[in-house]
Amino acid sequence: MSGKRRVTIAHIAEEAGVSSPTVSKVINGRSEVSPQTRKRVEQLLHEHGYIRRTASADGPVGMIDLIFAELESPWAMELIRGAESAAREAEASIVISVLHTHAGPGRDWLERLAARRTDGVIIVSSRLSSQQYGQLNARSIPFVVIDPDGEPAPDVASVGATNWQGGLTATRHLLELGHRRIGMIGGPPDMLCSRARIDGYRAALETAGVEVDPSLILNGDFLVGSGHDHGHALLSLPDRPTAIFAGCDMQAFGVFEAARQRGLRVPDDLSVVGFDDLPLSKSAWPPLTTVRQPLEEMAFLATRMALGISRGETPEPRRVELSTDLVVRESSGPPPR
Amino acid sequence: MSGKRRVTIAHIAEEAGVSSPTVSKVINGRSEVSPQTRKRVEQLLHEHGYIRRTASADGPVGMIDLIFAELESPWAMELIRGAESAAREAEASIVISVLHTHAGPGRDWLERLAARRTDGVIIVSSRLSSQQYGQLNARSIPFVVIDPDGEPAPDVASVGATNWQGGLTATRHLLELGHRRIGMIGGPPDMLCSRARIDGYRAALETAGVEVDPSLILNGDFLVGSGHDHGHALLSLPDRPTAIFAGCDMQAFGVFEAARQRGLRVPDDLSVVGFDDLPLSKSAWPPLTTVRQPLEEMAFLATRMALGISRGETPEPRRVELSTDLVVRESSGPPPR
Repeated sequence: MSGKRRVTIAHIAEEAGVSSPTVSKVINGRSEVSPQTRKRVEQLLHEHGYIRRTASADGPVGMIDLIFAELESPWAMELIRGAESAAREAEASIVISVLHTHAGPGRDWLERLAARRTDGVIIVSSRLSSQQYGQLNARSIPFVVIDPDGEPAPDVASVGATNWQGGLTATRHLLELGHRRIGMIGGPPDMLCSRARIDGYRAALETAGVEVDPSLILNGDFLVGSGHDHGHALLSLPDRPTAIFAGCDMQAFGVFEAARQRGLRVPDDLSVVGFDDLPLSKSAWPPLTTVRQPLEEMAFLATRMALGISRGETPEPRRVELSTDLVVRESSGPPPR
Repeated sequence: MSGKRRVTIAHIAEEAGVSSPTVSKVINGRSEVSPQTRKRVEQLLHEHGYIRRTASADGPVGMIDLIFAELESPWAMELIRGAESAAREAEASIVISVLHTHAGPGRDWLERLAARRTDGVIIVSSRLSSQQYGQLNARSIPFVVIDPDGEPAPDVASVGATNWQGGLTATRHLLELGHRRIGMIGGPPDMLCSRARIDGYRAALETAGVEVDPSLILNGDFLVGSGHDHGHALLSLPDRPTAIFAGCDMQAFGVFEAARQRGLRVPDDLSVVGFDDLPLSKSAWPPLTTVRQPLEEMAFLATRMALGISRGETPEPRRVELSTDLVVRESSGPPPR
């Protein structure tokens, strides 16, 4: 029984052995329901594929929620811009929430969201448990994930970039310049986009017959500081790398700093490649060679998908990866002789 | 009669010669009211200091609107972070709107805002007409302005930084290093914060007995490109400046680029000072000497003020300027001999 015939609140209430107002309270995120009842009702709503009537009856609310784990990097700004322009096109606004954890939104946040209603949620680099996905589903809140942290369920709509391909291309560029000792700074180990970039790096080395040295692979947090710290760590190795694929532009800026502090010139003594192509990267010194991922377009597309789902459309395809491109500037060159 | 006795919708309706539902429609931003009637009702609401009952009766909506003219610079990210943390403290969320014009929000935007309700609006660097201020007032929507564009009315709550003092300090720093030919790149001429920085620059020069040369003062748009273009313009003058106060950090990065393209080293051949102290400025090359303004704190405070006004408090003081500090790094030094 999977929601072919539209299920009503009364039906759910009967099956759960509670009153219809209690079911409404769960749907609307009100607090005066016991945890056990709430869980049972959510379960039934999910099983029956309940579609919130208000979503179609009252029309759009005019708001899309954009949820960040952190708001630390100019990277987030590109996503906000993309989401804002898709929302504006639909006469909607963007609501920003920052969770300050990668663990996904807490129950409170979900309750507040359900209480004030939203047309959809874009989840950026956060790990949601299957229970949290279930809570969004039970309330018929459309959601799309950008750069999932961990492995999302196959029915979850998501937008990303071709991270593996980007990692491969960045590393190949350095191999073609003649580098053999290439350091790699990834992001948080549980983020899929980071794992894919590192795997692309490995694949490029292996295809070229260059042995992968695990001591050259470190995990950062995608911010300047970890580029700086891990840059120093890599550059203090006895057989130090002649190039570093920094995993993202912010970490590349940190590697620039570490190189300067050690009196190394980029690219004469050390080549550095980033990932993102932030607007600032072309004015960095030296201008940064990087893998461009279309952050603004990714958020634009995710927002359109969420708005589409809220109108009852099924996103096709459900999982989208936008392509990445190598942008060669001045931070990469041949290895020192 | 200025709202000492609480005025009712019925009272406004009677005075306007319309029905009470019509007055409600105006207050709630509904569209089915003629422009003339709307204007008359708004006028009366404003004159009588009507306080929307729902604001106190229904409690907070849990949303603060942050309106940007543009979302181009990492500068905006600092404001979003500050606003988000004040909102989170109050269990509220931040709604982002980008107007893509400095001319302030259009009528449509105001209607939508009134229709969905908000606890308050933070207006960033946008020019609102007195009519637009009147529309916000008529709907009892609390608002606070950050970095007003043009001259806000004296009763408008606003948060800024000590821009004049910052401009003075930046220029004095360059004078003390021995510079006499100091270029100045301001922002849009009608932005108060830009005018104040330029006036601070003039005051420093005049106090030091250095003549102000109008050909050394240019107006940009606070983005990298105008720093680059105006940097080239200043550096191609027959008697070129030995130092440039770039007005903001993004313009300083553009000046860095222009200097490099002309084969000039910073700070050996040219000193550069910014304004903002963005997180990236300390990792720029060379690390940027700049005037720090506490952007995150400014937005935090503005959001708290708006939330306070929505609870019926009167912000005291109404116009706040947070202090700025000179941060000396490596982009400034003595003039070349």
